[in-house]
Amino acid sequence: MVKLPDFVELKEVGPRDGLQNEQKWLPTEDKVEWINMLSDSGLGEIEYSSFVNPKWIPALSDARAVGKQLKRNPNVRYSALVPNMKGLEFALEAGIDGASVFMSASETHNLNNINKSIQNTYPVLKSVIEEAKRAGKKVTGYVSTVFDCPYEGKIAPNKVLSVCEKLLEFGVDDLSLGDTIGSAVPSQVEKLLDELLTRYPREKIILHFHDTRGMAIANIMTSMQYGINRFDSSIGGLGGCPYAPGAAGNVATNDILYLLHGLGIKTGINDKKIQEASLFIQNKLGKVLPSRSLLASGQ
Amino acid sequence: MVKLPDFVELKEVGPRDGLQNEQKWLPTEDKVEWINMLSDSGLGEIEYSSFVNPKWIPALSDARAVGKQLKRNPNVRYSALVPNMKGLEFALEAGIDGASVFMSASETHNLNNINKSIQNTYPVLKSVIEEAKRAGKKVTGYVSTVFDCPYEGKIAPNKVLSVCEKLLEFGVDDLSLGDTIGSAVPSQVEKLLDELLTRYPREKIILHFHDTRGMAIANIMTSMQYGINRFDSSIGGLGGCPYAPGAAGNVATNDILYLLHGLGIKTGINDKKIQEASLFIQNKLGKVLPSRSLLASGQ
Repeated sequence: MVKLPDFVELKEVGPRDGLQNEQKWLPTEDKVEWINMLSDSGLGEIEYSSFVNPKWIPALSDARAVGKQLKRNPNVRYSALVPNMKGLEFALEAGIDGASVFMSASETHNLNNINKSIQNTYPVLKSVIEEAKRAGKKVTGYVSTVFDCPYEGKIAPNKVLSVCEKLLEFGVDDLSLGDTIGSAVPSQVEKLLDELLTRYPREKIILHFHDTRGMAIANIMTSMQYGINRFDSSIGGLGGCPYAPGAAGNVATNDILYLLHGLGIKTGINDKKIQEASLFIQNKLGKVLPSRSLLASGQ
Repeated sequence: MVKLPDFVELKEVGPRDGLQNEQKWLPTEDKVEWINMLSDSGLGEIEYSSFVNPKWIPALSDARAVGKQLKRNPNVRYSALVPNMKGLEFALEAGIDGASVFMSASETHNLNNINKSIQNTYPVLKSVIEEAKRAGKKVTGYVSTVFDCPYEGKIAPNKVLSVCEKLLEFGVDDLSLGDTIGSAVPSQVEKLLDELLTRYPREKIILHFHDTRGMAIANIMTSMQYGINRFDSSIGGLGGCPYAPGAAGNVATNDILYLLHGLGIKTGINDKKIQEASLFIQNKLGKVLPSRSLLASGQ
């Protein structure tokens, strides 16, 4: 079969993409303690919060406090989601190594999520990207709904390409392509990567899968068969799906680690510490997290 | 990428492998009504019960009544699990098109599950297979723990091959290879299929995955890249894991259909009817089933 990468880099998005979908308020000190545990697990990058307006995401309204109280591990890149210049200002003040900007490949999803058309989103992100780069920060461009949109259905690869093109032109270091509603199957991943990898080197591409329909691990296998070796994941599979209450959200860090380490692929991440951090957050939130591997561990 | 099969055949094992792990007693008339719904969905084969001693699996103690009360659809093959001559006798009386015999590739699992060594299991299965063939029935040989054993750990492919060889020699029509504890990753699937497919035609091979650690869909993709086009699955992901209480069991028919139909692979199975049969059994058992796709449907 096709040769897979020797090393895969995971970005832990549980503290941001995971928690933002949780109803229960997690006190700042618990967030900090949890992120400190994650910092100690061998993860190379942690997206620790979101600097969007707290009205939109009350669960992450303490982003500044979290950023200031974190115990920084010099081997970890701490990044955060920033929607605009105001958010970037707060993020820089709280301390970030990387900024993540975001928009959708689908016009309707962009309108619903950001309240702007794709065209009107560009100048906002351009300023944020340029300012973050001036501040010496790494910038990742999240592109949502790259396969399917909850409003528009299938998204043509050329729509994704046009957004990617603009973000790279504005200066993002890499792109994280999101299967926002967790609906893609491997043939859709192949189709998009066939297009993208003729234009951009694979190092620029991160894939961000949700496991809403149980396809994430298969999609990750397919991506690795294309040489992709960077993925976003969320510890325990924390974070639901706003379009299907009760359904699974982000692919679980635990499950992708089970796959990667089973395949003999190195990650630098310590399974035991991920397990401990999973049990910590599961206990704090008082609910069973959706990761299949975590469930199978009988904890 | 590698060409995948055009058509995949699923055997529905929910009424047997699914229910046998459920604590709650499902009345015979509910089983019959549910299997009749499944019979009407386009599935080609349904394993409707198990003729093991009811002391071992009380949940399926009404196998004879179920077999007699089923409304038979001429397009469906109705099979059942039979452990020995006594079980076969009851199964033939209740009506079967196919008999499934079973044993493990792991000596310790076989001892724990069947109470016999592998060597002492062979003569029992030989008689059952020969008698079932004399009665004009199709016979499938289940081989459990073909990747990992809960007692012995990794199982070498040559142990699996030696059991397969014997069962084929006794006359089974095909082999269903079970990832009994749902622990395999795609490289293990590749390793086993590399060995098996040099000896046997792929038509003889069925794969039976459990989704205990969320790897089943990826393992099915890998199997299909080897040309395998027959899988066992359980509606809604019904059936837990006896080694990890609360964890997922058989791969869900719903999730594999989501994959296959998304890939444009034909199955002859109607998604809507599978959804209805899933909601029926979910309602009767009064619990949320683990299928991710079923959960995502918001029902």
